[in-house]
Amino acid sequence: MAQRSLAALVVADPASINYLSGYNAWSFYTPQCLVVPAAGSPVLFARAMDAAGATFTTWLGTDDVEGYPEELVHNETTHPYLWIAGRLRERGLVTDGDVVAADLDAHFFSARGYLALAAGLPGVRIEDSRALVNWVRLVKSPYELDQLRIAGTIAQRAMEVALAAVRPGRRQCDVVADIMAAQAVGTPEHGGDYPSIVPMLPTGRRAGTPHLTWSDERLRAGEATTVELAGAYRRYNVPLARTVIPGRPDRRLAHTALVVRDAMAQLLAAMVPGRTAHEVHAVGQAVLADAGLVKESRMGYSIGLGYPPDWGEHTVSLRPGEQVALQAGMCFHVILGMWMDGWGYELSEPVVVTAGGVERLTRLTQNLTIIR
Amino acid sequence: MAQRSLAALVVADPASINYLSGYNAWSFYTPQCLVVPAAGSPVLFARAMDAAGATFTTWLGTDDVEGYPEELVHNETTHPYLWIAGRLRERGLVTDGDVVAADLDAHFFSARGYLALAAGLPGVRIEDSRALVNWVRLVKSPYELDQLRIAGTIAQRAMEVALAAVRPGRRQCDVVADIMAAQAVGTPEHGGDYPSIVPMLPTGRRAGTPHLTWSDERLRAGEATTVELAGAYRRYNVPLARTVIPGRPDRRLAHTALVVRDAMAQLLAAMVPGRTAHEVHAVGQAVLADAGLVKESRMGYSIGLGYPPDWGEHTVSLRPGEQVALQAGMCFHVILGMWMDGWGYELSEPVVVTAGGVERLTRLTQNLTIIR
Repeated sequence: MAQRSLAALVVADPASINYLSGYNAWSFYTPQCLVVPAAGSPVLFARAMDAAGATFTTWLGTDDVEGYPEELVHNETTHPYLWIAGRLRERGLVTDGDVVAADLDAHFFSARGYLALAAGLPGVRIEDSRALVNWVRLVKSPYELDQLRIAGTIAQRAMEVALAAVRPGRRQCDVVADIMAAQAVGTPEHGGDYPSIVPMLPTGRRAGTPHLTWSDERLRAGEATTVELAGAYRRYNVPLARTVIPGRPDRRLAHTALVVRDAMAQLLAAMVPGRTAHEVHAVGQAVLADAGLVKESRMGYSIGLGYPPDWGEHTVSLRPGEQVALQAGMCFHVILGMWMDGWGYELSEPVVVTAGGVERLTRLTQNLTIIR
Repeated sequence: MAQRSLAALVVADPASINYLSGYNAWSFYTPQCLVVPAAGSPVLFARAMDAAGATFTTWLGTDDVEGYPEELVHNETTHPYLWIAGRLRERGLVTDGDVVAADLDAHFFSARGYLALAAGLPGVRIEDSRALVNWVRLVKSPYELDQLRIAGTIAQRAMEVALAAVRPGRRQCDVVADIMAAQAVGTPEHGGDYPSIVPMLPTGRRAGTPHLTWSDERLRAGEATTVELAGAYRRYNVPLARTVIPGRPDRRLAHTALVVRDAMAQLLAAMVPGRTAHEVHAVGQAVLADAGLVKESRMGYSIGLGYPPDWGEHTVSLRPGEQVALQAGMCFHVILGMWMDGWGYELSEPVVVTAGGVERLTRLTQNLTIIR
């Protein structure tokens, strides 16, 4: 903020709000933000009914939590961000001539919210924060790594349940019920939190596309199912993907599974501090290309704190041109999702970058699971 | 659109996209929109990997589904909406001098997305759609009412499971596991879809605030828990709230439960076509006020198709000043949430407005559930 001469930062990403203040509730469907001034305490703005309960989760004092009136919710003629702008002026956090940065590409900071904030601060320049706090979140603290390890344990249990639950004749929704119960139960020591994305298990031809959710159709023998899910603990999300087939895989699928396992091994071995995301991606890409496989989408992304609808941190992706160098303490979901024409295969590993290579957050076989 | 002389409508609300095109996937965490021109077929824009699978759920032809390149995702220097703007020009859907309306207050249409769209269409005026499609969705078709009735059945089962699962000594997360499994299983005939909000069961002092999610703490005898959850079927959400206490309620809680039940009965009786949302709210408010209870937040809102993070339609609320008149086919979640200082009580009814009064979508006792 000092480098950019910012008078204040309007943080709208729920995970960034949590990171800075501890605030945690399913309240992000109405406007809310944490305003971080250049000096002094941050101020949380939320709907009045949510502000009342904010003290349960945040370290902020009650003077630094402000609730906007209920009539501003879904109101055609005014907007909570106009009210927030007024309060920023009244509190002296922002004055004419200031430069303020806001999370312009964050989920839940709507275009109308931005326009209302700008209208309420006519003498202030509002620029894009360029996800400033998300970038700060990139390298995890020891506390954060502990939460991620617990979330990894929960992810592994949920995946074990999933791989055991996929059986021909069962409805997809019944498999999901088993998975979601395992995600919430967690472990005897650590209960699960809600993952940022529901379990996805596209099956058969639908496995050729990544984000279709389940139906109540029955699973069929011989059709591969890709399972992508996360374990979550105190809002830290650890995603995990595997593929399972009831019956014998055809040669194409069996071959892809072997190639992808090899690509994963070489890619993980390349993840050492100092190597760029571009270089790491190139290692995986080379293995796939040598085997005649094409993958156009990224091979991974940074993970940590997350809220629906995404468990990615919106910073570093493992893809061509990404010149960020890896550092110890970064965490990635490395995912080799092969979405082909009418079929698919997925294998992923959630990992922490350490001085000596990667630490895996889950321990599961990297093979295609075949149910006989 | 004709009344407002719109050349095109940029629909960004995932529920409105589904309503118009059938498109359904967990893809809304990257930019996507359905562009409806004044004449001709709508065009769906999504990330390339999602566009490939769109045909599984939408009736649109493959020519009318466009995927933007992967490198535009979380890219600091360009944005998918700049690419979309270019395609709108190239397809001849928008030309200089046109007026285009966009869902400026929709979740997932970010400020940066709006600015990129505007930058890519410099000769075009972009105005707020004012949630145009959401308002069209307000009155449900017979098909939609059928989906809502199924979702209501699932909500009722999930609540029955929840009320049986709340027992002193159990971890909150284990109760949630039971609820989420019931939500996904649905009924033998109809599997459950994912609700737009996770189950919420604030307990004890936390029940004084509405949107705190669960932890792995254990439930305690004598502490009331408010349970708010939904049943979902094919993206139609039916929310439901009840309160349960293991042990004997104090006089204050028992009294509130009786008053709220009475307020609910009178409010539902007032929900007839022609009556305004303001008038309906006033009926409920009067019953509470006569008993010395104060509730500042709205008493209900329109429901139907929903995606995370909200199951409300962002149109009509039951609150002071809301002059929309009820019509047959509107659906509401009528919720009397009493969030007091250190305790809380909730009772809700999801209902359809009909010519002869309301049809309840669930059938459960409206009393406080007391576990002995």
